[in-house]
Amino acid sequence: MEEFNGVRCHGEAVEAFVKSLVVGAGASEESAAAVARALTDASMRAVDTHGVRLTPHYLRGLKAGRIKTTPSVRIDRLAPGIVHVDADDGLGHLASYRGIEAGIAVARENGMAAVSIGNSTHHGATGCYTLAAARQGFAALGMTNADAIVAPHDGVKAFFGTNPISFAVPVTEGQPLLLDMATSSIPLNRVLLRRDTGAPLPPEVAIDGDGAMTTDPFAAAALVPLGGANYGYKGAGLAVMVDLLCSAFTGMLHGAQLPSFAGDNVTWPARLGHFFIIFDTKAFQPQQAFAERIVAFLADLRAQPARPGERVMAPGDPEWEALADRTANGMPIDAATWDVLGAFAKAYGCVPPAVIATATAHRD
Amino acid sequence: MEEFNGVRCHGEAVEAFVKSLVVGAGASEESAAAVARALTDASMRAVDTHGVRLTPHYLRGLKAGRIKTTPSVRIDRLAPGIVHVDADDGLGHLASYRGIEAGIAVARENGMAAVSIGNSTHHGATGCYTLAAARQGFAALGMTNADAIVAPHDGVKAFFGTNPISFAVPVTEGQPLLLDMATSSIPLNRVLLRRDTGAPLPPEVAIDGDGAMTTDPFAAAALVPLGGANYGYKGAGLAVMVDLLCSAFTGMLHGAQLPSFAGDNVTWPARLGHFFIIFDTKAFQPQQAFAERIVAFLADLRAQPARPGERVMAPGDPEWEALADRTANGMPIDAATWDVLGAFAKAYGCVPPAVIATATAHRD
Repeated sequence: MEEFNGVRCHGEAVEAFVKSLVVGAGASEESAAAVARALTDASMRAVDTHGVRLTPHYLRGLKAGRIKTTPSVRIDRLAPGIVHVDADDGLGHLASYRGIEAGIAVARENGMAAVSIGNSTHHGATGCYTLAAARQGFAALGMTNADAIVAPHDGVKAFFGTNPISFAVPVTEGQPLLLDMATSSIPLNRVLLRRDTGAPLPPEVAIDGDGAMTTDPFAAAALVPLGGANYGYKGAGLAVMVDLLCSAFTGMLHGAQLPSFAGDNVTWPARLGHFFIIFDTKAFQPQQAFAERIVAFLADLRAQPARPGERVMAPGDPEWEALADRTANGMPIDAATWDVLGAFAKAYGCVPPAVIATATAHRD
Repeated sequence: MEEFNGVRCHGEAVEAFVKSLVVGAGASEESAAAVARALTDASMRAVDTHGVRLTPHYLRGLKAGRIKTTPSVRIDRLAPGIVHVDADDGLGHLASYRGIEAGIAVARENGMAAVSIGNSTHHGATGCYTLAAARQGFAALGMTNADAIVAPHDGVKAFFGTNPISFAVPVTEGQPLLLDMATSSIPLNRVLLRRDTGAPLPPEVAIDGDGAMTTDPFAAAALVPLGGANYGYKGAGLAVMVDLLCSAFTGMLHGAQLPSFAGDNVTWPARLGHFFIIFDTKAFQPQQAFAERIVAFLADLRAQPARPGERVMAPGDPEWEALADRTANGMPIDAATWDVLGAFAKAYGCVPPAVIATATAHRD
């Protein structure tokens, strides 16, 4: 994790600013509100790789026509337990929040629901949506596929996206349990950053063009699935599961067939798929007993003895600590992102949020 | 993977033999048939750690009363999309196969189904049950919790079971896609075997009593989650998900509260939970289009360029190669297991299967 200078602003002010920029790029009010909500949520939890730093990507996609500015999101009930969301090539954030709402409605009467989302685009951090379900008292499993940057185990060429898995459970005392993890060891951003800083990569996270493990960020041609040289077949197996649930089950393409997120081609519809499962926990167990078990589990886990200088944490705990800090002291925005957003603000006639402090922001 | 001598027998003959032993230990016909089916299925796919080698464990559990010989498995529909199976402290194999059947029935009308199983015992390899669903044309996600042998990330003491995740999808041309992976890097068996052979463990798969990584099988006090020293929080996060879906959602205890599978106490009910999700794929997408996408995905994956001397494989491919070999040449059974099973056969008046060849069996 590298550090550098930036500014801090109030989260609500950033959210309003991002929304105004996205409206400035032509998006509908509801599309803009969804992307601003998701990016702010991620940044407030220090998931900066999927936070407001991504705003320019979406602004460019909207302007170029790759992302539809005013999509007609359509929701169909395919079966008593399944809803399908057609995102109509609009922002994936809107389709995903809508899918969670529709899934919750189905889970209320059915006990659980599958939500398949097709014709979508990049939706930021998948954990934003499982978290939205948990905030309403529902557990959720979430996945998305993405364009290929991760090699198969023993492969030499990218085939999978980082294909994240997220799982959230509501907790009556405190913040939800929130897992949100790529099925690769590191994100592509880490490689790009190390190219800037010249620092080597950790071992067994990337391969060169011949498929050999490399720690040289310039030689890195693809990422490696979670598990590295010996156990990468497990991370790759999870990537397969995510890829299929988000493609064959949603009617979309698998990761290796998708256009590049980072490439120059921003006009081709992304045709991404997402997949969620919503659980009404009180349909499984009595509400009070379930709540007590979750609280007891988390207390037991967090009380486990740790290596010197470390703590045993539950999934999401680092995010909740960041949220507390950023709620109190503002959201840090790195200087490069701040400058780019400022230029868009000028072009679209939007007003940037007040700077409440200079900040040492992290970037990973 | 270590090699040693054993025998080879026809799979069907082994299945009948195992069933006769389990009946000999007092179990009901249907209980015995379920465990024999699962153990034979695992062994035929070379998942020997969860194959017929486990038979003595179940025989002892049945005799000691930890596993009920004639359980009354009860199935309740908790909601339109949820069935709960009460295993009544019987063999987990019976409850799991029953749960898959009940889940398929629900998925046929509902599109999908959650199957929560409580009051269960060790069910062998979770992949046996997702595979059973795939053989009937349904995709399935499966999990089980287990007694604690895996430390939390940065922890010094076992807290999670190996908490496997399995995912199976039917394939119209060829065998199903079948992922079945522990959320630790290695199974406990690997440590025990290395104590026999004296060979060191791979790096970053186990810790000593102070929480430091160790390759000494005698110093190993707990396993490490998938991801090792740097990314073990991801494997641990998956272990949390499995643990909660199999405990809080099923009404059972979490892994750290369960009695030891390997310990001397074989009288306490195991109180294990399992969790499955069944998907009727044709409720998501037109049947033919779905089938074609799966076939195309697998062809694309298997055709990916590989490092010299390697092949890119789909989840389950090594198992299907083993199945072909073992169907043609018989199932290898290691000499130690063969001797123990022979002693039980003598005690119960059962007839061991014919030996069709001596074999070099592997044990990992």
